[in-house]
Amino acid sequence: MNPAEIIAKKRDKQILTAEEITFFVNGFTAGDIPDYQMSALLMAILLNSMTAEETAALTIAMLESGDKVVFDTDNPIYVDKHSSGGVGDKVSIILAPLMAVCGLKVPMLSGRGLGHTGGTLDKLESIPGFRTDLSIEEYKTGVESIGCIINGQTPQIAPADRKMYALRDVTGTVESIPLICGSILSKKFAAGPNTIVFDIKCGNGAFMKDIDRADELGRNLCGICRAMRKKSAYLITDMNQPLGNAAGNALEIDECVTALIGRGPDDLMQIVYGLGESMLSLGGIASGNEAIMLQMGKIEDGSAFAKFLEMVEYQGGDTARLKNKRPLMPAAKIIPVPSTSTGFITAIGTYKLGRLIIEMDGGRKVVGQKIDLSVGFVMKKKIGDRVEKGDILLDVHSSNKLQADYLIREFSRCVEIGNEQPIVPELIKKKSK
Amino acid sequence: MNPAEIIAKKRDKQILTAEEITFFVNGFTAGDIPDYQMSALLMAILLNSMTAEETAALTIAMLESGDKVVFDTDNPIYVDKHSSGGVGDKVSIILAPLMAVCGLKVPMLSGRGLGHTGGTLDKLESIPGFRTDLSIEEYKTGVESIGCIINGQTPQIAPADRKMYALRDVTGTVESIPLICGSILSKKFAAGPNTIVFDIKCGNGAFMKDIDRADELGRNLCGICRAMRKKSAYLITDMNQPLGNAAGNALEIDECVTALIGRGPDDLMQIVYGLGESMLSLGGIASGNEAIMLQMGKIEDGSAFAKFLEMVEYQGGDTARLKNKRPLMPAAKIIPVPSTSTGFITAIGTYKLGRLIIEMDGGRKVVGQKIDLSVGFVMKKKIGDRVEKGDILLDVHSSNKLQADYLIREFSRCVEIGNEQPIVPELIKKKSK
Repeated sequence: MNPAEIIAKKRDKQILTAEEITFFVNGFTAGDIPDYQMSALLMAILLNSMTAEETAALTIAMLESGDKVVFDTDNPIYVDKHSSGGVGDKVSIILAPLMAVCGLKVPMLSGRGLGHTGGTLDKLESIPGFRTDLSIEEYKTGVESIGCIINGQTPQIAPADRKMYALRDVTGTVESIPLICGSILSKKFAAGPNTIVFDIKCGNGAFMKDIDRADELGRNLCGICRAMRKKSAYLITDMNQPLGNAAGNALEIDECVTALIGRGPDDLMQIVYGLGESMLSLGGIASGNEAIMLQMGKIEDGSAFAKFLEMVEYQGGDTARLKNKRPLMPAAKIIPVPSTSTGFITAIGTYKLGRLIIEMDGGRKVVGQKIDLSVGFVMKKKIGDRVEKGDILLDVHSSNKLQADYLIREFSRCVEIGNEQPIVPELIKKKSK
Repeated sequence: MNPAEIIAKKRDKQILTAEEITFFVNGFTAGDIPDYQMSALLMAILLNSMTAEETAALTIAMLESGDKVVFDTDNPIYVDKHSSGGVGDKVSIILAPLMAVCGLKVPMLSGRGLGHTGGTLDKLESIPGFRTDLSIEEYKTGVESIGCIINGQTPQIAPADRKMYALRDVTGTVESIPLICGSILSKKFAAGPNTIVFDIKCGNGAFMKDIDRADELGRNLCGICRAMRKKSAYLITDMNQPLGNAAGNALEIDECVTALIGRGPDDLMQIVYGLGESMLSLGGIASGNEAIMLQMGKIEDGSAFAKFLEMVEYQGGDTARLKNKRPLMPAAKIIPVPSTSTGFITAIGTYKLGRLIIEMDGGRKVVGQKIDLSVGFVMKKKIGDRVEKGDILLDVHSSNKLQADYLIREFSRCVEIGNEQPIVPELIKKKSK
């Protein structure tokens, strides 16, 4: 096979065979196919797209380029959940133990925050001692014995993706649905799940701003899963305001504890139960209302929280503060942000809120940056709420790095207040199938 | 400026500024912008195209990357002619002295044959001693004093084009009209002309098989010239059979001599006069019938042939055989190819004829290959001619390398004979303006 001919085929809008795709990815990973040929192919893929079958072949080639975990092949109870990313999205940390206690196995490899959204690993690392670098053996054993593990990706996972991503970043080839899907799924499936539920976030705090683009991503991800003979479903959920009340690493773990003991905010729980229902249904445990009731029961009877503590302990984390429901890592100061007018909250600048956390060092500007896990904010009001002038809109949890005046002004600007009561955005906008 | 952002702009079908294009080409030529970014941009250009203004900026950036000759700026009498390539196309060698003796200056930098078409430099080198490696000074002096020079390109001409071409060749980005135009024009304008006439060959022996594609190329080339403030015109001419009778390096020089002394085949002379009319018209010397008559007169009175000999002498060539009208380099043997049936010649496989010359070592399979200048063929019959079984269709001028039987069979297969008298393809299919 000739790399230039494969590029020309995609350039001419022809469909590549699995053999051609595998040849190209393997040759590139091994260094036999140079960067300049891969970048030409990536641009041709971006502009001419790929079918689900082509993207499945790409995903498999990237997945097979490195280490991967295999559990009981084809058993649908090995379930993962993937979110396209938003502000305050701590759902994985609640769902993993909740699903495990409902009878599923949840093998999760997560990432760190970059851009305006947080990362599950960072959040978990605000639990003292929590390890996200379990060996493959520790990880497998944990999934089988406890039922859920949330671990970091080793450098041996999908090296083709890492090399391709570095190239995409500097050649204008990031924003391609097949390439995005290949990158997500090659890493997800390396963790061993046979079933996956996608939470496609949609709104001003998400990468997908409108429902059509979100739906396109969801349909593509599930199309590729089908071509890979993996079970899958997707939900499109609102990200026009933070999910739950808390955003920021340690603050989100605090809210996960609140949720797992039955006192979570309604919006957060609705998303947890909605995604959980899809996972339980695909996993063959329960569906519909039965699945919702099963989840609620496991929260009420304390078993979901107990499972969470079990997972934390297995991963080396100190559970003392979690058990006492004490704030995990109190910030240096808490700055209340009052409303400057009276009316209804009509919109929340969610992307901007995410960026402010990064400004407070609660997220990364560059890969590898050390972050302050204590900072963030807790919403006191959400879209549709009536506020009087002077009412507290949110509390900023801050270090001493930034001036309180500055933070109050900037956070205040993220909350729009108007005279008309707005329509509250629908939380679950679409469920596949 | 950021290379990745420039790539993303073209990916998103936006128009690049001249500054962005110059920055990219200069950065790439200097080695500051890596191959993988250039190949991504090239693919984006191939798939999303470029405007005439963008392509003009690209051409200028490539042109300015190396040495270039400047004559009297804006004076339209400095005229070049460019052919898109065909079999038996020896027009430049006749036109250069003919135009010079009509009052134009013809600064030509030509290339070598590659693919199924011959190269002007190879043809001229069948004249003993003929130098195609004149220094820039010798070249300039020759154009000014004699009125025409046909020289080779130095490595210092458009280095950006050479580097880009090497990359295009292995990344599926050769077949792009803006990139093809940029490559042609950056080299052409480095030779110093202010006016250029394009001969776009169209037919089974040309790169452009149909008139729409040929017209697109012509319109693009002239659009870019306009954006560069150069005068230009194009003709679309037939390449469904060899031009003139002779094809092969020395054989074509013999036919040029025949043409310059007034005995050239009709089809060849019609193309020479047609292109010459455009050159004289743009150069401000004469147009229409007056320009045709002027050219005919300069052939009849012997001055065009004398100018040719003057150019050959200036370039170090031995004119003895030319003056005596003796075959320049007789081949080892001449093999007549008879017709195997009676009827009319309906079609000629021109591309195949070109490939057969290469098989006889009369052209190159790889860059730098040494070739046999003596081989080729001379047509005795052309499309529309009536032939009896046994009539000679063409003479093959061959070395001893290939068997006569094989050559007779293969050449014979290039000539289709049918019962119906065909319509002879129109020689000049279109003239711009």
